[in-house]
Amino acid sequence: MAVFEHCHSLGLAVMLKGPTGCGKTRFVEHMAWKLQRPLTTISCHDDLSASDLIGRFLIRHDGTAWQDGPLTRAVREGAICYLDEVVEARQDTMVVLHSLTDHRRMLPIDKTGETLVATPGFQLVISYNPGYQRMLKDLKPSTRQRFVALDFDFPPAAREAAIIEKEAGADHGTSMALVALGHRLRALRDRGLAEVPSTRLLIAAAALVVSGIPIRQACLSAVVSPLSDDDALVGAMRDLVDATFA
Amino acid sequence: MAVFEHCHSLGLAVMLKGPTGCGKTRFVEHMAWKLQRPLTTISCHDDLSASDLIGRFLIRHDGTAWQDGPLTRAVREGAICYLDEVVEARQDTMVVLHSLTDHRRMLPIDKTGETLVATPGFQLVISYNPGYQRMLKDLKPSTRQRFVALDFDFPPAAREAAIIEKEAGADHGTSMALVALGHRLRALRDRGLAEVPSTRLLIAAAALVVSGIPIRQACLSAVVSPLSDDDALVGAMRDLVDATFA
Amino acid sequence: MAVFEHCHSLGLAVMLKGPTGCGKTRFVEHMAWKLQRPLTTISCHDDLSASDLIGRFLIRHDGTAWQDGPLTRAVREGAICYLDEVVEARQDTMVVLHSLTDHRRMLPIDKTGETLVATPGFQLVISYNPGYQRMLKDLKPSTRQRFVALDFDFPPAAREAAIIEKEAGADHGTSMALVALGHRLRALRDRGLAEVPSTRLLIAAAALVVSGIPIRQACLSAVVSPLSDDDALVGAMRDLVDATFA
Amino acid sequence: MAVFEHCHSLGLAVMLKGPTGCGKTRFVEHMAWKLQRPLTTISCHDDLSASDLIGRFLIRHDGTAWQDGPLTRAVREGAICYLDEVVEARQDTMVVLHSLTDHRRMLPIDKTGETLVATPGFQLVISYNPGYQRMLKDLKPSTRQRFVALDFDFPPAAREAAIIEKEAGADHGTSMALVALGHRLRALRDRGLAEVPSTRLLIAAAALVVSGIPIRQACLSAVVSPLSDDDALVGAMRDLVDATFA
Amino acid sequence: MAVFEHCHSLGLAVMLKGPTGCGKTRFVEHMAWKLQRPLTTISCHDDLSASDLIGRFLIRHDGTAWQDGPLTRAVREGAICYLDEVVEARQDTMVVLHSLTDHRRMLPIDKTGETLVATPGFQLVISYNPGYQRMLKDLKPSTRQRFVALDFDFPPAAREAAIIEKEAGADHGTSMALVALGHRLRALRDRGLAEVPSTRLLIAAAALVVSGIPIRQACLSAVVSPLSDDDALVGAMRDLVDATFA
Amino acid sequence: MAVFEHCHSLGLAVMLKGPTGCGKTRFVEHMAWKLQRPLTTISCHDDLSASDLIGRFLIRHDGTAWQDGPLTRAVREGAICYLDEVVEARQDTMVVLHSLTDHRRMLPIDKTGETLVATPGFQLVISYNPGYQRMLKDLKPSTRQRFVALDFDFPPAAREAAIIEKEAGADHGTSMALVALGHRLRALRDRGLAEVPSTRLLIAAAALVVSGIPIRQACLSAVVSPLSDDDALVGAMRDLVDATFA
Repeated sequence: MAVFEHCHSLGLAVMLKGPTGCGKTRFVEHMAWKLQRPLTTISCHDDLSASDLIGRFLIRHDGTAWQDGPLTRAVREGAICYLDEVVEARQDTMVVLHSLTDHRRMLPIDKTGETLVATPGFQLVISYNPGYQRMLKDLKPSTRQRFVALDFDFPPAAREAAIIEKEAGADHGTSMALVALGHRLRALRDRGLAEVPSTRLLIAAAALVVSGIPIRQACLSAVVSPLSDDDALVGAMRDLVDATFA
Repeated sequence: MAVFEHCHSLGLAVMLKGPTGCGKTRFVEHMAWKLQRPLTTISCHDDLSASDLIGRFLIRHDGTAWQDGPLTRAVREGAICYLDEVVEARQDTMVVLHSLTDHRRMLPIDKTGETLVATPGFQLVISYNPGYQRMLKDLKPSTRQRFVALDFDFPPAAREAAIIEKEAGADHGTSMALVALGHRLRALRDRGLAEVPSTRLLIAAAALVVSGIPIRQACLSAVVSPLSDDDALVGAMRDLVDATFA
Repeated sequence: MAVFEHCHSLGLAVMLKGPTGCGKTRFVEHMAWKLQRPLTTISCHDDLSASDLIGRFLIRHDGTAWQDGPLTRAVREGAICYLDEVVEARQDTMVVLHSLTDHRRMLPIDKTGETLVATPGFQLVISYNPGYQRMLKDLKPSTRQRFVALDFDFPPAAREAAIIEKEAGADHGTSMALVALGHRLRALRDRGLAEVPSTRLLIAAAALVVSGIPIRQACLSAVVSPLSDDDALVGAMRDLVDATFA
Repeated sequence: MAVFEHCHSLGLAVMLKGPTGCGKTRFVEHMAWKLQRPLTTISCHDDLSASDLIGRFLIRHDGTAWQDGPLTRAVREGAICYLDEVVEARQDTMVVLHSLTDHRRMLPIDKTGETLVATPGFQLVISYNPGYQRMLKDLKPSTRQRFVALDFDFPPAAREAAIIEKEAGADHGTSMALVALGHRLRALRDRGLAEVPSTRLLIAAAALVVSGIPIRQACLSAVVSPLSDDDALVGAMRDLVDATFA
Repeated sequence: MAVFEHCHSLGLAVMLKGPTGCGKTRFVEHMAWKLQRPLTTISCHDDLSASDLIGRFLIRHDGTAWQDGPLTRAVREGAICYLDEVVEARQDTMVVLHSLTDHRRMLPIDKTGETLVATPGFQLVISYNPGYQRMLKDLKPSTRQRFVALDFDFPPAAREAAIIEKEAGADHGTSMALVALGHRLRALRDRGLAEVPSTRLLIAAAALVVSGIPIRQACLSAVVSPLSDDDALVGAMRDLVDATFA
Repeated sequence: MAVFEHCHSLGLAVMLKGPTGCGKTRFVEHMAWKLQRPLTTISCHDDLSASDLIGRFLIRHDGTAWQDGPLTRAVREGAICYLDEVVEARQDTMVVLHSLTDHRRMLPIDKTGETLVATPGFQLVISYNPGYQRMLKDLKPSTRQRFVALDFDFPPAAREAAIIEKEAGADHGTSMALVALGHRLRALRDRGLAEVPSTRLLIAAAALVVSGIPIRQACLSAVVSPLSDDDALVGAMRDLVDATFA
């Protein structure tokens, strides 16, 4: 957290690295609140174009008018601009971020001929899950080198249980048992599970239990079935559920 | 059904997993009626863009006007939004659903700069056939983890026969015989049948029988021929029809 | 024919399966005439988009106006909507047909926010040639299961000769000889002929003979040369022409 | 030629098969003149869309106006519509021709909702070079079966020499020598020459000779160099030029 | 040059074949000046569409207006139209040139329905580098056969040195040494150099020398480094530079 | 630097070759300042079209108006036009630069029919990282040959340490230690590190140290983690960090 704050005051861009659902988005929301900066969140996807980030001309009845994209608005307002799951975007869309991440801190808008200098407080933050599809998509080295990286992981057991208790209103025993299940399931990564259960899944299971659903059924619906369709993997996970709640 | 209702009141998104034609769409229609919520259904396909879901500017004679897409309308109205056959959509289109499926429950509309908070009652439901083309298309793990999964399968024999009787007006013997045929044909999955006959196919065959078509011809037209063009598989299915109605 | 009529009155969609030029289009035209329904024919191709089927906004001098596509018009008018060579269309375009082929019988028009319920009499009919390029393109199982299938093949010899006599004005001997040639050429399918001669080709040859072209030349121009460029196959077909008219 | 005229009066579509530059285009021009029909020529290419053939809406200052494409104009005028090098077009663009090549002789224009019946005299003619890139692109069997095929080849030697004399103003000896060279070069097809020299190349060489260029240089510039960049093939062709004009 | 002039007066299209930077563009400029014809140059690339060549409708405040493309302007004006690096264009874009390169000498403009006959003096010239990427892109045989080919190569040593002296203002010794270096480097083609140094590179090196840069550094910057990033090839080229200027 | 200035006065285009973050952009900024020329920077990416460089028509309420792209503006103003990371652009987009890089120094604007001659002082500069993805993307040889190449590398140790001291306000010992770490990490290139740490990364680490972050953590966040996700490589880099700051 200290590193993030120093990066903010130094104007350095930050990359949050860690698995799905471990709290990266919440961390950025918390830091924006703590630093008293507006937050602009952009969910990245393969169709996200440079124009979606920067802006475009809209046709109006009295001619065309320029409309800022979310990146441009953040640059003007000095906001924290958070690009969620940045590897989903095409590498070349990310090139428009380059001039904002070095000493220039500026954004050229080719379509209007304008060049914006970032308002103080503007900071670029990206999130990134290094364990997923590493082969297919990856950040370009020349993009990566423009960010200070903060490594995230699931919280330690006691902390994760406390989160589950608070978010789902579950009792301590249920929360601890779900965390234990989570640890066992996360150990399946080496046996072919594409992605391991996030804290978010454990919270969903706990919430169903609080609603009155039996804990095994809650775990099957909220944790096991979302993770895989593979019969062998599902079977292994059911066995772990049975072993945990026997 | 209890799990679905609890997910609804907890604001958790739901994934319905099961084969084609086993009643997933009807289940959602029933739940929307029971929970007294409007239902918005979106058939997913490969060209479905984020703009199709969220909305777009239309050019009018007095300038451009924003038009909500079906997802945006559902978010505003607090409707149940049902994305049918969600694997047909591109994975990156699905990314726009992410902020609606975690604690934020919000939908940023980049093109207008607006951010909607979901009206209470809004719930996202997706359907998904895990047995079909598992290799080519699949949900991204980080998307899957955002849904509680409910597993569907064909109904038990007596229940399926009762459905056929009611939907097609067929007599009990015909319905039971068609269900028996269905079970035999579904066993061919391991012999290369890409998809097994749904209850819907059996209802169509029953309806033709009620119209006066002989039962073997009805089964060939409504069940066997739609399932495959492969001579060997069609032959095997004809043999099962003959064996069932000998 | 009885199956088609019953499907029409039951509101079931129909798939006509059979080789090129065996009379599927004529069959639909006949049924539309017999059932007294308007007929809308759509030739499918790879660029056919959902908008081409459903409709689009056109820019006019006084703003934009919605224009129904042929599918929407058929749904409104209660017409028979015939999608010719449906495998040529992209599978995802076909997804827009799904809600019209189950108990809902409705067509959601996302772009206007309207949902049409099909006018009574509306029926969806598709044609499909299972012998052609089976590997590359095929209907999705979840689409196939929405249609009752009627299998078509070339007519029996006497019937095909009668058709040739009537359509081309040819004498009985010529027609019978052309049918015999057709049968011999159709047997070449197993030797690599991508598609076998349709009745339409035999009619064209007969029409040229009636015009005064010698029968061998007519067969070479109207039957052999259109079927293949492969020297070996063309040679084999010439031999069969010579053998038939020796 | 008799077959073409009969096809015209019978309303049958025609496919001209033969190598590049053997006179297919001139043949169609001659037949259009002889039959006293207007001629519409369309050079096919990979970007040719159905809209390019049929027409589109143009935006005008007083709204949009429909503009017929060349195919639609030909259908209205009863013209001969000649699609040159038809394999260059995408197969699915060709699908719009289907309803014009069977008993319907009609063209549905989806965008206006109009259905044109072809004016008498309308005839579809396509050209096609079977020797070129047979593997990559080919006409779909269901398209091929809609045309009567006329096979073209280079003219016999005396006739080709007469053409060269007339077109280039060359003397008889030069023309005969160029035809002899053409025959020798055409024999290289089996040694890897992608396409053999057309009559058009021989005419160009003859024209350069008449202009005063030495015959060997004329043959190298107008015949050998256009045919290949491969050193071995060019060497073989030079040897044949030397042998012919030694 | 005589061949080019005769082709011009005969209306034959010309293809200039030769390596990068050997003077093809200058040759066309010279011929246009000598023949007193306007010159239109089009740099070809993969996105060049038929509309870019022929023209398009532009929306104006008083409706749409047609704007000729550069090819159409050249056809109207009787200009020499030079398509530079023609293999960069897609083969199918080139199809629009076909009717301009045979006896018709006409350009159909589908979008306006107009057919232009080329004004006398119009001539099509294309340039083409046969040594580069022969496998990936190539002219279609049916396009190649429409051009008389003129083969270009680097000028002989004395001539190339004279060009360097004149263009860069270099002395005779420097020019001769650079030509000698050029010959040695061109011999590396067989050792993997994708393209050999053009006269243009040698002129750039000479100009730097005249500016006061030492000759070895000028050769490294202007000749060696632009040609390759491969360490082994760069090393071999440095050795040749050292050997030449030792 | 002398070579760059001479290239500028000779009107020769320049290619800056070197690794990410070694100062190419700063060098161009410095030269533009020294030569007193305006500087136009364009970050290249895969979607950069020729229209993005040259300009396009915009629709206004009183018709369409042409808007120059950044390249066209630079040509008119006699600016230095810097194309950053030029290999990211498609090769064919780069073709529009060709006529600006030879004796013509002109830019044809097809869409307006205008041909600009470059204002004196205009110079084209491109940057290029030869070590990155050499196989996938590369400049076309005929484009490369149009530029004089200047080779860049990281500065020598003393110089790099001085830069770090000045940019980050770090003390000499920290700067020297970070440079030593940088040299050790750059030696990992041969062991699979896709790109080695730039001076920019070392400056970021130094800035965090000045902010109060312990030097090892600063190096892990600012140097090690941005460079790789591979456990083995990250481990090796951590060992080098530990060895450097033990």
